[in-house]
Amino acid sequence: MVLAKVVGTLVSTQKESSMDGLKFLILQNVDIEGKSTGGFVVAADAVDAGAGEMVLYASGSSARQTKQTNNRPCDAVVMAIVDNWETDGKFKYKKGIND
Amino acid sequence: MVLAKVVGTLVSTQKESSMDGLKFLILQNVDIEGKSTGGFVVAADAVDAGAGEMVLYASGSSARQTKQTNNRPCDAVVMAIVDNWETDGKFKYKKGIND
Amino acid sequence: MVLAKVVGTLVSTQKESSMDGLKFLILQNVDIEGKSTGGFVVAADAVDAGAGEMVLYASGSSARQTKQTNNRPCDAVVMAIVDNWETDGKFKYKKGIND
Amino acid sequence: MVLAKVVGTLVSTQKESSMDGLKFLILQNVDIEGKSTGGFVVAADAVDAGAGEMVLYASGSSARQTKQTNNRPCDAVVMAIVDNWETDGKFKYKKGIND
Amino acid sequence: MVLAKVVGTLVSTQKESSMDGLKFLILQNVDIEGKSTGGFVVAADAVDAGAGEMVLYASGSSARQTKQTNNRPCDAVVMAIVDNWETDGKFKYKKGIND
Repeated sequence: MVLAKVVGTLVSTQKESSMDGLKFLILQNVDIEGKSTGGFVVAADAVDAGAGEMVLYASGSSARQTKQTNNRPCDAVVMAIVDNWETDGKFKYKKGIND
Repeated sequence: MVLAKVVGTLVSTQKESSMDGLKFLILQNVDIEGKSTGGFVVAADAVDAGAGEMVLYASGSSARQTKQTNNRPCDAVVMAIVDNWETDGKFKYKKGIND
Repeated sequence: MVLAKVVGTLVSTQKESSMDGLKFLILQNVDIEGKSTGGFVVAADAVDAGAGEMVLYASGSSARQTKQTNNRPCDAVVMAIVDNWETDGKFKYKKGIND
Repeated sequence: MVLAKVVGTLVSTQKESSMDGLKFLILQNVDIEGKSTGGFVVAADAVDAGAGEMVLYASGSSARQTKQTNNRPCDAVVMAIVDNWETDGKFKYKKGIND
Repeated sequence: MVLAKVVGTLVSTQKESSMDGLKFLILQNVDIEGKSTGGFVVAADAVDAGAGEMVLYASGSSARQTKQTNNRPCDAVVMAIVDNWETDGKFKYKKGIND
């Protein structure tokens, strides 16, 4: 999975009918320090994530293994909101503190 | 999914027979500001997208989860035409205004 | 799908038995102008493509959605020979003219 | 599969329900010398890997071919802890010696 | 598929149980001239490839379409040993001559 920050939303009226009801989030990829890498992706939301939250997203066929995305033409899904992560025993990100 | 702009079309007569009837679109990848990133891809069209429209496309096995592309050797499909997107509460693109 | 030009062939005698009879093509990726990008890939041939032809290839599980490649350890297949493509209404490539 | 070193862990409370009980590891990709390449990924743990261990991870649909990750929105899984590797007959890494 | 050269092997004792008996090869990616590109990958061996041989490997779900790798968390498999390849009618590699 890849770490990213929710930075926006996208609206589409004319879409493949099975995509109706899915929320599209714009995600900014972040590095291990939580800083933007410059890359971004548009993902479906399976966990009710909001702007500014750090999340994990899954890509490819794994993005269809949620109730919301099953059998849909969706190749990226937010499947977890991140509380915190650490490397070498030091917290790099804590929700509510490093936002 | 990835943001892109429809910039052209491609014609193929001699192709895998299951691809008959599919329309091939040439997509220019765009960044979060809607500017070209230099990359492009050829995708099947599942939503009747036209030249100049901003779209989302799905890749890999997810590209086969539409009526048009099911069980076909197709690894990219346009599955949504974009109305607008915003980041940090500001619109970056609105159809008909930023085209 | 990705645009590429057939530039060569590859021979393998000792291979996974299900690959017997498949023709391996060496493809040079091309950009939207039809110029080499420097990248290349080896793909199975599902459309009897020949040296010098512009083609589309599909990757991943989609590469197995042809009669020739079904259930085989094949992750790239040439599934269309390109007649022409245009961007912004101008032909970038026409078979027999820009070869 | 890709070589990586376990450098941390990630905690998520609000996630797709099927992900409950999975442990998320932060992996630093390494090159053939065992040095960091700068890239990293978040993967589920299928082999009880610990901080500092060299591991292999599998991506995409292959990441779901373990008991822990089957049918889950998981696109990267640690499926092996590395004892050693060699190139051209010389050991590049031995567990317990090059850690 | 991608061209690569077998440059080493990797040993793992503690791994997902379904991976038992698989041989892990370290592959150096090569360009169309047969020169190293700097990249490498760890792949399962389905064709009894040896050190120094030029091979093709398949990635993703296609890497599971061999008897050895079926239903296993394996995302790269060597599925062919290369005899030779040519571009523009000139041999770039012949086994036993360009090794």
